[in-house]
This record gives sequence, C-alpha cells and structure tokens, in this order.
Amino acid sequence: MDLLSIKDPRFLKDMNIEQLEKLSEEVRQFLIEKLSVTGGHIGPNLGVVELTIALHKVFTSPRDKIIWDVGHQSYVHKILTGRACEFDTLRQYKGLCGFPKRNESEHDVWETGHSSTSLSAAMGMAISRDLKNEKSYVLPVIGDGALTGGMALEALNHIGHEKKDMIVILNDNEMSIAPNVGALHNVLGQLRTAGKYNWVKDELEYLLKKIPAVGGKLASTAERVKDSLKYLFVSGMFFEELGFTYLGPVDGHNYEDLLENLHYAKKTSGPVLLHVITKKGKGYHPAESDKTGTWHGTGPYKIETGDFVKPKQAPPAWSSLVSETVRKLAREDDRIVAITPAMPVGSKLEGFASEFPDRMFDVGIAEQHATTVAAGIATQNMKPFLAIYSTFLQRAYDQVVHDICRQNLNVFIGIDRAGLVGADGETHQGVFDIAFLRHLPNLVLMMPKDENEGQHMVNTAVNYDDGPIALRFPRGNGYGVKMDEKLIQIPIGTWEVLKEGTDAVILTFGTTIPMCMEAAELLEKQGVSVRVVNARFIKPMDVEMLKSIFAEGLPILTVEEACLQGGFGSGVLEHAEEMGVYGHPIRRMGIPDRFIEHGNVDQLLEEIDLTSKAISEKITAMVPKKKQQRA
Amino acid sequence: MDLLSIKDPRFLKDMNIEQLEKLSEEVRQFLIEKLSVTGGHIGPNLGVVELTIALHKVFTSPRDKIIWDVGHQSYVHKILTGRACEFDTLRQYKGLCGFPKRNESEHDVWETGHSSTSLSAAMGMAISRDLKNEKSYVLPVIGDGALTGGMALEALNHIGHEKKDMIVILNDNEMSIAPNVGALHNVLGQLRTAGKYNWVKDELEYLLKKIPAVGGKLASTAERVKDSLKYLFVSGMFFEELGFTYLGPVDGHNYEDLLENLHYAKKTSGPVLLHVITKKGKGYHPAESDKTGTWHGTGPYKIETGDFVKPKQAPPAWSSLVSETVRKLAREDDRIVAITPAMPVGSKLEGFASEFPDRMFDVGIAEQHATTVAAGIATQNMKPFLAIYSTFLQRAYDQVVHDICRQNLNVFIGIDRAGLVGADGETHQGVFDIAFLRHLPNLVLMMPKDENEGQHMVNTAVNYDDGPIALRFPRGNGYGVKMDEKLIQIPIGTWEVLKEGTDAVILTFGTTIPMCMEAAELLEKQGVSVRVVNARFIKPMDVEMLKSIFAEGLPILTVEEACLQGGFGSGVLEHAEEMGVYGHPIRRMGIPDRFIEHGNVDQLLEEIDLTSKAISEKITAMVPKKKQQRA
Repeated sequence: MDLLSIKDPRFLKDMNIEQLEKLSEEVRQFLIEKLSVTGGHIGPNLGVVELTIALHKVFTSPRDKIIWDVGHQSYVHKILTGRACEFDTLRQYKGLCGFPKRNESEHDVWETGHSSTSLSAAMGMAISRDLKNEKSYVLPVIGDGALTGGMALEALNHIGHEKKDMIVILNDNEMSIAPNVGALHNVLGQLRTAGKYNWVKDELEYLLKKIPAVGGKLASTAERVKDSLKYLFVSGMFFEELGFTYLGPVDGHNYEDLLENLHYAKKTSGPVLLHVITKKGKGYHPAESDKTGTWHGTGPYKIETGDFVKPKQAPPAWSSLVSETVRKLAREDDRIVAITPAMPVGSKLEGFASEFPDRMFDVGIAEQHATTVAAGIATQNMKPFLAIYSTFLQRAYDQVVHDICRQNLNVFIGIDRAGLVGADGETHQGVFDIAFLRHLPNLVLMMPKDENEGQHMVNTAVNYDDGPIALRFPRGNGYGVKMDEKLIQIPIGTWEVLKEGTDAVILTFGTTIPMCMEAAELLEKQGVSVRVVNARFIKPMDVEMLKSIFAEGLPILTVEEACLQGGFGSGVLEHAEEMGVYGHPIRRMGIPDRFIEHGNVDQLLEEIDLTSKAISEKITAMVPKKKQQRA
Repeated sequence: MDLLSIKDPRFLKDMNIEQLEKLSEEVRQFLIEKLSVTGGHIGPNLGVVELTIALHKVFTSPRDKIIWDVGHQSYVHKILTGRACEFDTLRQYKGLCGFPKRNESEHDVWETGHSSTSLSAAMGMAISRDLKNEKSYVLPVIGDGALTGGMALEALNHIGHEKKDMIVILNDNEMSIAPNVGALHNVLGQLRTAGKYNWVKDELEYLLKKIPAVGGKLASTAERVKDSLKYLFVSGMFFEELGFTYLGPVDGHNYEDLLENLHYAKKTSGPVLLHVITKKGKGYHPAESDKTGTWHGTGPYKIETGDFVKPKQAPPAWSSLVSETVRKLAREDDRIVAITPAMPVGSKLEGFASEFPDRMFDVGIAEQHATTVAAGIATQNMKPFLAIYSTFLQRAYDQVVHDICRQNLNVFIGIDRAGLVGADGETHQGVFDIAFLRHLPNLVLMMPKDENEGQHMVNTAVNYDDGPIALRFPRGNGYGVKMDEKLIQIPIGTWEVLKEGTDAVILTFGTTIPMCMEAAELLEKQGVSVRVVNARFIKPMDVEMLKSIFAEGLPILTVEEACLQGGFGSGVLEHAEEMGVYGHPIRRMGIPDRFIEHGNVDQLLEEIDLTSKAISEKITAMVPKKKQQRA
C-alpha cells in the first residue's frame, strides 16, 4: 500500500495476517530507504515493525495510550499515524522530530527522549483514567535496557502495588544502546531461553522425576531442590512477584503470537507484563548483525553495502579525544577507573575498556548509580572518570550535589555533548549543565577552546586532588589543531587572552570562541578593537583578570552556548556585584529561556541569534560612538 | 559499662552474648535518656542496637566499611566509635551531627542524609578494594524503605551482575519513614512470614503432597502449580535472581542469630544479601508501638509517658497549611490528585488521604517516579499536587526538566522545607531549589510572605493552567496571621510593596521578609527610608516594578534564604542586564558558596550574616552619605 496515504491507523483493523506481513515489508523498505538519506534510529525501528502494527491493530489510539519509552523507536508509529510523508525531513530543522512530539499528532500522548519514563507516565495516565471512570488501555513500551533505569524500577514497584490496569510491553531486544548490563538482563536471558508455553511441560516432568530422589537432610538439600526447580519458576516470577501478570515470551516478529497475546492481555485485569522478543535491525542485514550498537542510530548510509556515508575526513571526535587521553594517563596512573552509564560507544571508551578491562565499568542505563559509584571509588583515593552526556547528567543532579560535591570527593566528570546537540533535539540539548552545576560548592567546571587544550584539561582534572572537577565538551569533532606531545596542567581558575583589544572585551569559552574571534575581526575592520578572552574556567572564574577588566572600565560581552538564566554570564554579573562594580556595561548572549528543538547546530544558533554578526552588533551597540569613529 | 569511656569498638571482640545483651540494654537506656532532651531519630536507632553491635563485633571498622544508608540510624555506631560523650550536643550547632560525618570519625566512611545511596557507594568501595588487592568487607546497611529508591535498585542490578564481594544488610523494619509502599514490600512481607529455616521443611512436604494430584492438562494447571509452589521458592528468590546469595530472614534482636549469619556471610564469596528483621523503637514502648512514623524522628519527650515536650502553642505548620488548602480546594475541584514520595506525615497529607483516599498516592521513596507520575496525570487534564521537600526534589531534577517543564504540563509542585532546615543539617538544607529551577523554561516559582498569602498561592497554583507552577515554603510553622475566608488568585509575576521608602529598595521574599522589615525600621530611625518589596514571584519576576525601580535609580538590595549563585538576586542582575541598566547599585545577600551544617536556623543565619543588622549595614553602605545625614 501507499504508506504516504495513511491518515490514521484504523485501516489496520480490517487487515489479515498476510496483509499485515506485506505491510511490514513495505514499512521496512520505507525506513531503510528514507533513513539511508536522513540517518536516524534505524536499528530500534526495524525491530518494532510488527509490534507497532500489532499494537495499533488491537488497540485504538489515541483513546488507548501507547507510550514509547525513550521514543527513538516511534518511527513506525509515526508512519501509521499519518506522518510518512514527512520522513524526508526527519530530525532536520523544522522537520519531523525523531522522538514522539505532542504537537505533531494526537497519537503522541507522551514525549520522550530520556530513558525509563514510560512506566511512571503510564501510571499517571492510568490513575487519571480510573478517577474519571474512563475506559481505555494504557500501553507503555519499554526496552530491556531502559528497564534498568532507577525510575522504571521505582515505577514497576509502585504499579505492582497499586494493581492498576495496564499492559506493559517489554520490548526485549537484548541490547539497549550498547549491549545490556546487569542482573536484570540475566533474568530476561533466562526467560528468553525458556521458550514459549512448553517450558511448563518439560520442566514439570523434570521436577517430578527429581523430587522423590531428594530425601535425607532437608535443610541441606533445599539448596539443590531450589536450584533444580528454580528454572521452572524463574519464568516471569520476577515480574509476578512484583504483582504483574506475566505473559510471554512472545516472538515479536510473528503476528499470530503477537495478536493472540495482545488480545489475551486486553482481557486480563490488573497490571500485565507482556514480554516481546524482538531483533534490533530486523530485515536489514547490516543492522541485524550489529553486535556493538553501531546501528542504533546512524547518519546516512549506502543501502546495498551498509557503508556509512562518511563526512569528509574529520578530526577526531571530542569524546574520543577525552577518553583516549584518559586512557593514556591511566597507563601511568593506576588510580584511574572509568565509568559509563550504558554509553561505552558514544563516549568512545572502547579503547580504554580493551586496554583496562578491570578498570572500566559500564553500569547500564543508571546515571544515578554511576555517579555515586564514582563517589564511592573516590573515597578510596582512586580517581574515577565518570563519562556522561550533559543531558543525562541531569538524572544524577542530586548525586552530584549530595554524594560528590558535599563530600568534596575527587571525581572527574567528563560532560559530553555539552551545548546544542542538533538532530536529537530538545530532550538532548546539553544547555542546562552550567546552570545546574555552577551553584554547587567545591566543584570546578571548565571547557576547552580546542582539542589540544582539551587534552591538557583532562590531564589537569586527573591530577587535581582538591575535590570534584568537571570538563564539559561538545558533541562532534575537534578542529584538527596541532596536539602538544607533553601534557601540562592548566592552573585552576585561569583564563587566557586569545586576542588583545582596547575598546571592549568578550568573555567566552568552548564552541563560541570561533564566532567571537570572527566578530572581533569584523569589528577590527570597523575600527573597534575587541579583546577576546578564553574564559575556560566557568567556576572558579579568573577573579584577577575580571578585576583588571573592571578596572579598565571596558564594556564586557559574555557569550555562551548554554542557557542564560544562571549561566556563565550571570556568574560574571555576580562577580561584578560582589566586587561592588557598578556602571560597568556587561551584556550577555546565550540560549534564551525556552526549549530548543532539533535541527543542525548552525541553524539553531542562527535561530537564537548566536552568530558572529549578532555578536559584533551587540558590541557595536556597547562601545561609545566616538571610539568607533576613530577608524 | 561506661559508654562515655568507649574509644573504639575493639572491646566488643571479647564480649560474650550475655555481655552484649547487657550492653544493648545500656545503649538503649542511653539513647532514650539523651534523645528525650535533644530529640533525634529515636525509632530507627532503637531498632538497630543489636545489629550495630553485632556488625562491630564481627567486622573490623574502619578497615571493613560499614555504610549507613540515609544515616539517621547511625547513633549506636557513633556510641561504639567513641562519640557517646557528644550526645548532649546532638544535631545542635557545632555539635554532633545526626548523620555519619567523615570529619567526625574514621569509622564514618560515607556520608548520607538522602536515601538509597549506600549500595552504589559500597560498589565503588568494592571496586577500589579489588583493584588495590586489599582485603576488607564492604557492608552497606539499607532499610526496606530505602530499597525502593531507584538508585538502590540500579545498584542491586549492577552488583548482582558484577558479583563483587559485598554483604548487603537489609534492615527490614517494615516501615521506612512512613509505612512502606510498593510491591517490593510485599515480597519482603512474604519472606518475613516465611520464618526461619523451617519453611523449607514445611513447604517441601506440602509440595510433595500436592504434586501427584496435579495430572491432567499441564498448561492450565501450571498456574495452580506455580501458585502452590511459589511460596516455597519465593524466599530470597527475588534477590537470588539478581545474583545475590540470600541469607535470612534473621531476628535482628537475637545475637545468636545475628552473629551466626554475619559469620556465615563473611565466609560467602560474591554479593550476599542478609535479611535482618528489626523493630523500630525496640525497647521503648511509645516508639515500639508507633504505627504511623511519629517516632521516626522527634523533638524532646517525657521518658515515662512518651509525651512530646511541645513548644508553646504554635501556629499551624506550613506543610499543614498547604496540604489542608489543597484538601479544601479538592472538594470543589475533582481534578486534584495528591502525590507524595513516602512523606504523607511530613507533608501533612493525612487529612487529604482520609478524605480522598482514591486521589492520594504515596509512591514510596521514589522521587523520580513521583514526579513523572504527576506529569502523566497532568497530560490527562487533571491537576496533580506533588508534595515534595526541596532537598528531595533534587532527585527529580531531570523529571522536572524533561517530563514536566519541557512538555509544559500543569503540575503543581509544593516545595516543602525550602531554605535552611536546621537540625538535619547540610544534606537536608533546601537552599538549591531556586538555582536548579530558575533556568527551566515554562516554570512559575513563587514563595509566600505568610500563611495567608500561602493559601492564596495554593489557590493560584490550582487554578493556573498554563504550565508547571511551584510553591516553595519553609520548614516549621506560620506566623499565626489572620486568614482570609475567601481564597483569591494572585496575578502571576506580580510583586507587592510592603513598606514604602525613597532611599533604597529591598527585594526579598518568604522567610527573609521579617528581617528586612526590621532592618528597614532600624534604618528609618537613622533617617534612611527603605522600601521593602515582597518579591513573591521568583520566576517570572515583576518586570514592570523592576523597570520603575531602575528608573528611580535607587540602590537595590536582594535578600534570600537560598544560595547566591544562580539565585533570585542573580535573576535581578540578569533583568538589569537585559534592560540595559548599568550604573545601578544592586547588591545581593543570601547563602554563600559552601554547604551549611546543622544548627538552629537563627544560629545558621547569624553564621552566614543574614540578619537584620547585616542588612541594614549593607543598605547604609549603599545609600549616599548625604541622604543618611538628612535625619
């Protein structure tokens, strides 16, 4: 059928299994083709083609509420709810969002991006439904990886207790973003191996044979009995103990199985957990055979070969620069331990992991635990390196406050993807970290101007033993600058003048340095001499330099790719206030007080007026006319 | 023995059970007597007397690391580690901290206050120990309530996976702060009822009798078999599935049981979960018979009767004012649903719960889940009231960002215990919420000047349907002001002049208003006329009033009981910057960039120089001399 003509999923009601299978094939082809051009989360979506179609066939969205945990697996849902025609704009500026978006469709009842929220949201919807005496189904779809997130476990516990009607679809694809971690995964593994239905028969026979032979001392044999019986009762027990009716495991690519079990779940009251086994990348060989998570989300690729359409030769990624420098230092410094919450690939820790397998811990999707493990390690005079994305560090705010900063522990936090991240959009922009960290006592926060300074900052952080220190760095690649052989330590709280100037000063750091340099050059031509300072320590600031700038009485402009409220610029205002400096023109540029959607970073910067042109205009307005006319 | 003479716990090694029992009695008497004067967490500590003594007898602290989850149950540990003589100063300014504190003793290896961190910390310590090839035991002691916190579950999952040597002591007292919530609690309940050792025998007999009778259709009977067998295998299975060796349940007040099992745990490799059943308040009748959590932490009491030494007639508590107003409004507005993460008593929601049992959800210690449940409810055009302490809202920062603010949902967050909280100290001070919330788009944040304005603000929040709205209010009681009969709505973003003045302006809100009024009166006598503004909306600010104040050119002082970095005062600086106002003296007073320890709030305010005297001095320094001399 013509996928572009789909308006809503009602057409599925009349389809038979054969037709559904044909549709699945068409959806897969559509995804493989479209994403080969735009890039996107191909693996997860190919895995849920049948599941999504079956959900929309058996249930009636939006009355029935399908909640996509994390949300990157919602493409098939988007196709079925009338958005196939927008896939050419996927994850592009003003285009189709890569995650569920309430303003795109009434079928997107809950927005995601971060993991493990679906069960709590579902609980809220079930509570509301029951209070309003409405009849509807609530259907969170959560992956086995997302299930290890603390809030999902909190929710399981509460849902089991409240016994609300709800059908939790456990989309078990044996891999979250990277291969799964954790004991829960082992439980799921046992269930998977157990197979469907027939485990009962086989195991019960086994049991009957076994028991008469037990006899003797019960206390000691109890262990053996338990082990031999465990297998039987393990199936679903974990969830059943929590109060769920467990159904499955079901083959997530078999419509007969899926539809039968969804219908059965529909008739079951109380919370149901339907365990669906799917294969990430199903139907597209390169993605299906992926073992590391490379095909979780990709850029454009060649359909025939699965080769990625690489951008022209690019300098190393920031993540790689940081993790590889940590790795290099770890050769000399055996205090170093690396920790990642399920992002070994994204954080480019594969090299570290292969060289130091005992000193690398992937804790799964569990940012809170990751952060406090780092704190625990630091209490023992070791040097933990916590590699975490800015947006996911939000999950561990309290652990940074209460466990790390309050105890003033030597944790090195590598804050990856700081600033605008582009295509992933508003759930992933790393724009709040300065505002949520700057007020924390004891913390040092810095950002390098380029990858060479970046490696020196890694060295600085590793050798800093006076408390927590965080290095934020952007998504994407470095500039390809020359790298020093020998690593140095940058004195804490020192800034650097990148360009001298006598009419105004720009204080900036990280990604906004180039646009500020460009603006300064532009202004130079207009006769305005602008100093550009690499304000690489966001906390503590270079108080001496600030004092001398204030003493000069020059207008100051702060520029940052981070939210303005409580950001770096506010810190400069605070310092001026503390020093009792009035009458000193200080202006700030940064990210305004709203969420920034997806698009490429340059477009987003243009949208929020964070450009060299806007900077030079701002400076022009601040510098007295007579100075400008000297030229 | 003389508890005051204890230097460290080594003396326990030589004691026999009879001596230990006598010591327990002495420790209990000591606690009951000391806490009757100082107040403190009597219930939890009476519950762990034997457990703590047994731990220190079997293990060797500080080489072996005992980690107290939450930490309010560490008093016995403090006595055994040489701090009995400091109990007269418990939780008082510069006195003994109510939680573990690393600078108090080498035996306090990890500081707590917030729940559910111990397992992650233990994991970090175990990792370090193994990397350093040291030999020691890591012993997190976690309550059944704290176990429902997401990060504890994340940690269980990871620990089970990594198989590190560790002995997790599950201190199961059937009650966290309030009675426990959640499915996990049911699991523990089953284990508890199962009794010790003999369950194996009884159940196995039952099983053997049952099975031959099954026969027939296996698929359908499988359910029945599972149910009848479940009981047998439920014991510890939950933890065993996660990879732990489960020991217990053990009577936590019986030394023979405790010592035997601790020794057994010591010999067991890999992660062990030792399930210890204790009774909160054990040995002191009023505390032991407590069903609601009243004796969790108390003020002074009369030992003989258990009557609390009430302060003189006090006005209603802020928590009560807010929750009771919500309750009143809920009578008319059936959209209102109340949610608390394990704090129904602290948040004074008992009245709401008894009147609207279907509209009240205690989700257990699970702040993240609580927050996103509220968001989920809000998507269905209901009005969730999330009652949460400022310091615990830190746990749900990402959920406030990603789920509530980003989706702009109508959640009413009641931020209790905002500002300094006193005796609980640095882990509980509610001083960061303004800084971690002010930069979030879409959020309204307000604080009332008194309880009458407080009730109007509750009404404002309930009737505000344009996005999230948060009301912060302090710990403790209101002022006893006259309460209006009829509730009104306060226009969002409006401030109020409390006192006119022509020489300077103080912008303040909430608890700092009285000291500012006092300062203004003081200054009036010196001929300085100070305007005092109730800046009740922290976000959005009253831009019109700010504009007119800037236009007047008066010096401005901001005063807040919250951290200075990124706080309200910084917001005022930001507004001045945005309006292009230079040369306008603006100064800020608030909480400096360090953690504030325990003590009564007045002492703490004195320490950080947040007093009417300091305010008046600051103003005096800002107002030109000639104005001051007019008097």
